Amino acid sequence: MENKWKKWSTGENPEHTITEVSKTWNMKDALSLLQENLPEDDPRSTVHLALGDPSLIRCTSPVAEEAVIEALRSSNFNGYPSNCGLPLARRAIAEYLSRDLPYKLSPEDVYVTCGCKAAIETILPALARPGANILLPRPGFPCYESFAALSNLEVRHFDLLPEKNWEVDLDAVEALADENTVAIVIINPGNPCPSIAEIARKLTITVITDEVYAHLTYGEIPFVPMGVFGSIVPVITLGSISKRWMVPGWRLGWLVTTDPTGFFRKVGVVDSIKTLLCHSPDPATFIQGAVPNIIAKTPEEYFSRTVHILKQASEICYSRIKEIPCLTFSCKPEGGMFVMVKLNLSQLKDIKDDTEFCLKLAKEESVTTLPGTVVGLKNWIRISFATELSFLEDGLERIKSFCQRQAKMQSL
Amino acid sequence: MENKWKKWSTGENPEHTITEVSKTWNMKDALSLLQENLPEDDPRSTVHLALGDPSLIRCTSPVAEEAVIEALRSSNFNGYPSNCGLPLARRAIAEYLSRDLPYKLSPEDVYVTCGCKAAIETILPALARPGANILLPRPGFPCYESFAALSNLEVRHFDLLPEKNWEVDLDAVEALADENTVAIVIINPGNPCPSIAEIARKLTITVITDEVYAHLTYGEIPFVPMGVFGSIVPVITLGSISKRWMVPGWRLGWLVTTDPTGFFRKVGVVDSIKTLLCHSPDPATFIQGAVPNIIAKTPEEYFSRTVHILKQASEICYSRIKEIPCLTFSCKPEGGMFVMVKLNLSQLKDIKDDTEFCLKLAKEESVTTLPGTVVGLKNWIRISFATELSFLEDGLERIKSFCQRQAKMQSL
Ligand SMILES: Cc1ncc(COP(=O)(O)O)c(C=O)c1O
Ligand SMILES: Cc1ncc(COP(=O)(O)O)c(C=O)c1O
Repeated sequence: MENKWKKWSTGENPEHTITEVSKTWNMKDALSLLQENLPEDDPRSTVHLALGDPSLIRCTSPVAEEAVIEALRSSNFNGYPSNCGLPLARRAIAEYLSRDLPYKLSPEDVYVTCGCKAAIETILPALARPGANILLPRPGFPCYESFAALSNLEVRHFDLLPEKNWEVDLDAVEALADENTVAIVIINPGNPCPSIAEIARKLTITVITDEVYAHLTYGEIPFVPMGVFGSIVPVITLGSISKRWMVPGWRLGWLVTTDPTGFFRKVGVVDSIKTLLCHSPDPATFIQGAVPNIIAKTPEEYFSRTVHILKQASEICYSRIKEIPCLTFSCKPEGGMFVMVKLNLSQLKDIKDDTEFCLKLAKEESVTTLPGTVVGLKNWIRISFATELSFLEDGLERIKSFCQRQAKMQSL
Repeated sequence: MENKWKKWSTGENPEHTITEVSKTWNMKDALSLLQENLPEDDPRSTVHLALGDPSLIRCTSPVAEEAVIEALRSSNFNGYPSNCGLPLARRAIAEYLSRDLPYKLSPEDVYVTCGCKAAIETILPALARPGANILLPRPGFPCYESFAALSNLEVRHFDLLPEKNWEVDLDAVEALADENTVAIVIINPGNPCPSIAEIARKLTITVITDEVYAHLTYGEIPFVPMGVFGSIVPVITLGSISKRWMVPGWRLGWLVTTDPTGFFRKVGVVDSIKTLLCHSPDPATFIQGAVPNIIAKTPEEYFSRTVHILKQASEICYSRIKEIPCLTFSCKPEGGMFVMVKLNLSQLKDIKDDTEFCLKLAKEESVTTLPGTVVGLKNWIRISFATELSFLEDGLERIKSFCQRQAKMQSL
């Protein structure tokens, strides 16, 4: 087995290298490619719908902003942060998450990380062991594939079913898991929790629940944290303030052992997490220092307002895309900030796949969208609706013109 | 060769494992151990002299603080940061460093990182290749040893000579280097630059210059950035705002190819750096957004005042420690924020080594100091003088009482 860093520096390419993974699953590469394809001479501004960056809605909570300023001005948070996070930040996050759980988390269950991404980067190697595999959803979030490869974890994909509102294909999960399966990753909200917990218990595997979109639901199914099932199956909860507080640039997230039975401590996963965190960057101390106030002082109205905006945006997306013939919408989104849309390639003669669609769209209309390939679904595209509504409408209008032109070219 | 993360999770222990390295070189472990040894019932406050955390001086620049607040309030810096750093931060750092160089750096030469530590974490694997070794100073900074081990770089230590004002033992460097040596690390200020550049050129190895203490000199030798020699030898410059601006908690640093000949681009090191940065955490966007103003608006008086405080502190340290019989001071510090002090173990009967000295001192006097072993010098201790002067004096007084008690015990 090869070392993470050696691979990169020597360009060697064994089974699970980052190079290979990059070809399909690298978000940052895809984004740069899109960027390079944007025209320089378009008088219209670019509409960014590729990345789920809710700061584009420009709806930061003034309370959160003041919390950071207060922490900074106090001069109490200019020194080096402690390893697993400042005790006061850990306590605040433990209390925040405990509100929705049938048991109480302790501050020691919480590790503060540079966004949810760094939590993913920490938990995968902490669970890895020789020969192990991990079950990842498709479509998913490409960081999991990258960090699994770097941890020498074999990746096995299970599908989310578009025709069933992106529910987990539970039969596939059962068929994929074996005695070397260390965990299954779900992105929640998104998938039906109780059955996942049941399946995971039956298969005796850990559930990693990515709750970066926690509470951002606006359909019929309410958000239920996976940690609720912590007593029947060991659960690791990942999250951050990036999406709910709409500030991904603050880089503050968490990794939590939502595990009332103390399983992870017993099997040494907690020690591995601590060792890994010794060697990874910490979030800025004063941002950690602001966490208690960010959590305690943000009013309910802020959350209901932002969820309402997302709901509106998702509905605009749904109704506009329905009018575009060469795009198929599987179902109305009920949470998060993305829609997955299928390309009807037969109606797009000059376009051979999703990547070409997105690059041409960027070039001709200054609109960025993400090729589905990057998240595991070839010939789909992923559209983020986390942007100001007027921009979103403009962007969707441009996508429509683009598709109409492409369809016309075919009928010529 | 074993995977970084696998090692940690399985506790396997091949030649260069993190486990093994931890035993001697792990700063964070040492600090926790000290912490655990502090008494709970001491009415006096703890004096922290183990870590070089200049925020303890409580002298943050109001200008830097306002720059961060302005960037935050603008709402322009809440989104995801770009991979290698925000262009405006890269430009500001390039201009800042170019002031002291005979050529101009371009923004593309600069990569913004989570403190200087993350710059170390990036450059070592970027230079690694099978069979490679790296020359590290002793005493040094333990991050280099950890990240070298994780990158499968063999470590070869050269000594800094206490009797020669901690100059590099150049003969040792020549003897250690071979065709597999990829770089030599120096901590500058600290070592005589011109001869290092000459030697590195002769041996055709890259110089990694850790300039985290840049401009913090107050002796006869002025600070000269190693990048000045960039045209005769390839130089990588690492730095951060942690020390000069006294805000290590802000976690903002840089990795710079101070390399007017474009060597690192040609040999692929630049590509490796970019790939590595794709997978590592970014500093908060609004802190990056504040960099231009932090650099442009901090007045010269701020720097002269803080350097003056450090000079005073170093002199207090020197004069107090001279009075303590069982401690030997090699030479007066002329830069940075540490002194290395040798233990005369023959006068300390009940103490077998530096670690025991530091742990007992913590327990009996609530003063933390760093065992020299952690930075590679057994039976020395490292004392930081970056703290408020009254605390420093108090701490040194307690060290004196402790040593007097130990000496007395011997004469009993
Ligand atoms: C499913 C999922 N997990 C994690 C992340 C990363 O979150 P953060 O910005 O907090 O690192 C994202 C970001 O888009 C995501 O979509
Ligand atoms: C020599 C050296 N390099 C790097 C660092 C880390 O700097 P930063 O706090 O910017 O990560 C330190 C911190 O003490 C140091 O002493």
